Amino acid sequence: MEQRLSLVTLGVRDLARAKRFYDALGWRGQEAQETVFYQAGGIAVVLWSRAALAADSGLEDAPMPAFGGIVLAHNVRSRRQVDDILASVEAAGGRVTKPAQETFYGGYAGSFVDPDGHPWEVAHNPGFGLAEDGALVLPDLSAG
Amino acid sequence: MEQRLSLVTLGVRDLARAKRFYDALGWRGQEAQETVFYQAGGIAVVLWSRAALAADSGLEDAPMPAFGGIVLAHNVRSRRQVDDILASVEAAGGRVTKPAQETFYGGYAGSFVDPDGHPWEVAHNPGFGLAEDGALVLPDLSAG
Repeated sequence: MEQRLSLVTLGVRDLARAKRFYDALGWRGQEAQETVFYQAGGIAVVLWSRAALAADSGLEDAPMPAFGGIVLAHNVRSRRQVDDILASVEAAGGRVTKPAQETFYGGYAGSFVDPDGHPWEVAHNPGFGLAEDGALVLPDLSAG
Repeated sequence: MEQRLSLVTLGVRDLARAKRFYDALGWRGQEAQETVFYQAGGIAVVLWSRAALAADSGLEDAPMPAFGGIVLAHNVRSRRQVDDILASVEAAGGRVTKPAQETFYGGYAGSFVDPDGHPWEVAHNPGFGLAEDGALVLPDLSAG
């Protein structure tokens, strides 16, 4: 299996509500067949019915637990952007679960959940490179 | 918030087991501070303690439910690659939850869960472009 990811699909209970949330954060997707597709760099972030997504994966749907096990992260170029995005999230109807604060790795980050409970971290991590187009470039972690 | 994603972190109960699984599929990561980082195109896929990840997100940890709500997808260039990857997954200790089959959109796909229950779809979707470097390029979904 090549070392890459193509899509991240978020199971949602109310597609219109989920789309409003991501749209309010400034995202612009394409809606087709009750699914919303957002081009996000070299991958797509997709919103689709949680029940349909579970069935399509051959799994039993389950209520959203307190923690689903996967966290998405959005890295930014400054601390100010962390604060700005978390403020936008609250205005858009998301819930900040950890206010922005210093991190153990010398960065600054906060976390939120979207209307379906999917967690995101918004982070300024000076140790991880961000290319001009927003691509994340891992450093050599054995150095330092 | 820019329309992009930087990291996808998978909460794991046994880091060595999870790393063995992804390594067996051919991935090569960097381990630092009990965390494994895989560069995957313009993002990183990360393995980290599920309990630590929940706490870091300001959420209560919870047992892995039957379905956590997020599905990752790995798109490939042929049906043959779908079959080959699902065979590798079984050999590596993953569990195929949906055998490869025709999809409603004219593709061919199957699904598996990794040792921590995180679901992946492996898909050949002739309607979605894959660049030379593996980047996914959404088509204009309003056409056709």
